[in-house]
Amino acid sequence: MAVGVFDSGLGGLTVLDAITRRLPDVSFVYLGDSANAPYGVRDAEDVYELTCAAVERLFAAGCDLVILACNTASAAALRRIQENGLPEGKRVLGVFVPLIEALTERRWGDNSPPREVRVKHVALFATPATVSSRAFQRELAFRAIGVDVEAQACGGVVDAIEEGDLILAEALVRSHVDALKRKMPHPEAAILGCTHYPLMEAVFEDALGPEVELFSQADLVAASLADYLERHPGIAGGGTSAFLTTGDPIRVGRSATRFLRRQIAFDAA
Amino acid sequence: MAVGVFDSGLGGLTVLDAITRRLPDVSFVYLGDSANAPYGVRDAEDVYELTCAAVERLFAAGCDLVILACNTASAAALRRIQENGLPEGKRVLGVFVPLIEALTERRWGDNSPPREVRVKHVALFATPATVSSRAFQRELAFRAIGVDVEAQACGGVVDAIEEGDLILAEALVRSHVDALKRKMPHPEAAILGCTHYPLMEAVFEDALGPEVELFSQADLVAASLADYLERHPGIAGGGTSAFLTTGDPIRVGRSATRFLRRQIAFDAA
Repeated sequence: MAVGVFDSGLGGLTVLDAITRRLPDVSFVYLGDSANAPYGVRDAEDVYELTCAAVERLFAAGCDLVILACNTASAAALRRIQENGLPEGKRVLGVFVPLIEALTERRWGDNSPPREVRVKHVALFATPATVSSRAFQRELAFRAIGVDVEAQACGGVVDAIEEGDLILAEALVRSHVDALKRKMPHPEAAILGCTHYPLMEAVFEDALGPEVELFSQADLVAASLADYLERHPGIAGGGTSAFLTTGDPIRVGRSATRFLRRQIAFDAA
Repeated sequence: MAVGVFDSGLGGLTVLDAITRRLPDVSFVYLGDSANAPYGVRDAEDVYELTCAAVERLFAAGCDLVILACNTASAAALRRIQENGLPEGKRVLGVFVPLIEALTERRWGDNSPPREVRVKHVALFATPATVSSRAFQRELAFRAIGVDVEAQACGGVVDAIEEGDLILAEALVRSHVDALKRKMPHPEAAILGCTHYPLMEAVFEDALGPEVELFSQADLVAASLADYLERHPGIAGGGTSAFLTTGDPIRVGRSATRFLRRQIAFDAA
């Protein structure tokens, strides 16, 4: 049995990396839907259907638990997939909930009612598509009470990372942090709401200053998964790990190797 | 009779502004396809069909000459529209050609063969979608010889301008100019290859330094149009100007007013 990790492209590899650092014995199947990426430009119905197909594919590959490591997929599909009912013994978890848990100290898979948040002024850094979808803001309103979120659409950062220009990516991150601080001078916490941003975490940390608590999706998902697996033993482990893509495995493998700065080989999904 | 100016959204208003500054007596019909914007995320066939429909709409509105003030539409549709043949007396001109003319000193509507360029090292600043489409590079290879273009995908600048955060837009422009200079330390010329960038022209100019000749699409299109109208009298003038949108006229008018910082009212197309 393995944990399935789904993303529209390669960004979810930062989530997978955080998971394997925290849980080195867990086997996983990573599925990147590169043939249909990016999801940010698709409509919600389209993203829902692509996400359902990917989840089915990961269930078929032997995963009882699938993590949607993609903000767009989580926002458009997670709640609907859970409400429609899943096959016996199967679970799908999203990338938003661990963040909300971190703000509210609620646990993944725990269906208790919304709670007071422990931080009030929260900066959200995400892509223009995620910010304009208002998905984080909606999920927070649904799952937490009393949090004041100021969102900064960090245009250009993902492009700079994907082009491998980390000097530019750093300059852009610092400009976006400055722009956020003009709107919210003293955030207590900051959310890195894009799976690419863990690669720039040190820059966000430095630009925000030590008084701001930084929440990175990748680490939070890994921590939540560790907690979840402890409460639900027998879900993962003992299988073989694999990287699957709906795109061209050779091209995607080359991009992934450049993205994470270590060798990764993909197979066709 | 009027000159038609077409863009997928509001960016083409900077082109129209440059035209009306240069040619205050020319009447025009501006058509923004806000209902289908942005074009950058659509495939080429889709953009071709939307552009043809817009051109038809502007011909029907009494325009004998239509300017495609949209890089995506120009790249995907202009050559094909011209090759398919146009109704007697109608002309469609794109936003690329005046730039290539400026680099080669050839004139709009002049079908002479490609010439040697007079500047060799050219920096191109455009959106990530335009850069990755390689449309400028293809047009340059088709129409000019011996130019070395280094493209910088200026992620985030359009978003910052549209959000009205010009402090952020300035910081991002400076970072992108720095990134370009790491790849091409001494460009002789720079192209602002996005209709939003005229709003940041002073920042580009300052960041690039006085030794770099700056080509702005808006000004070049206006200059080419002035030259063209002198050679083809009777095409424009005497009509009533209008702003049309395929979107909601009230919302689009509000955005346009914020975008150009002066009052603009749109009608339904």
